Amino acid sequence: MDPFMRATIDEARAGLAEGGIPIGSVLVHNGKIIGHGHNRRVQHGSAILHGEMDALENAGRLPASVYSESVLYTTLSPCAMCSGAILLYGIPKVVIGENQTFMGEEQLLRERGVVVEVKQDAECIALMREFIQASPELWNEDIGEEG
Amino acid sequence: MDPFMRATIDEARAGLAEGGIPIGSVLVHNGKIIGHGHNRRVQHGSAILHGEMDALENAGRLPASVYSESVLYTTLSPCAMCSGAILLYGIPKVVIGENQTFMGEEQLLRERGVVVEVKQDAECIALMREFIQASPELWNEDIGEEG
Repeated sequence: MDPFMRATIDEARAGLAEGGIPIGSVLVHNGKIIGHGHNRRVQHGSAILHGEMDALENAGRLPASVYSESVLYTTLSPCAMCSGAILLYGIPKVVIGENQTFMGEEQLLRERGVVVEVKQDAECIALMREFIQASPELWNEDIGEEG
Repeated sequence: MDPFMRATIDEARAGLAEGGIPIGSVLVHNGKIIGHGHNRRVQHGSAILHGEMDALENAGRLPASVYSESVLYTTLSPCAMCSGAILLYGIPKVVIGENQTFMGEEQLLRERGVVVEVKQDAECIALMREFIQASPELWNEDIGEEG
């Protein structure tokens, strides 16, 4: 497996082990991970720390030139907020673990010129399927749906 | 002036007084402010705490039913990230101080059914004009542009 997708799934598993929502993300620049993240809704009582947002936050303040050479990895198709962050910073490519359990704003990203690669990775799908079945209310909260 | 826009501008001024980027936001539910925020890029070294994101974060974890009855106020037209957060949570209305110094994703918001009201408030315009003139590199960083 792509080592960056492996690191992304490991982030999702770390979130699950903390009692959180198992979605992970890493930001990769020039073949190096510069930001690790996972969903922190439960851990930090956060409404904005989706996995992708956490990876961007942990990468810190960066010049536009770094984002424009980076790839964002995420275990799950990015929601409107995380897709908007990708567009804000002009990140040119997103590698997605799966979009079977949730379809985010992939079409909008493609329309705006972002390269979107979907792996349909069995481990990512199983992680989310099990989580959604176990904690449907938490999952609905995370995607702004009625519980 | 609308007291919620007054509170929103006061947030922007609080950010400026802290040495930050002068953009403020409040989340209003049933005629009460439930989240105050302002841009914290400088103060927290944050890549994601735009004013609107900070207001959503400070409002805390909320059920979808609260977002669907709320109005988000912001001094400046919301960027792709903040607009995406509005779409994620199904916030039905956004009141914007101005869009003369920066045009965000108002068209996308309207296409998705969000009511967008732009005040073109002179105080908001002056705040941003002065800030952008004084700190163009910081402003460019905040909107993902080359410095």
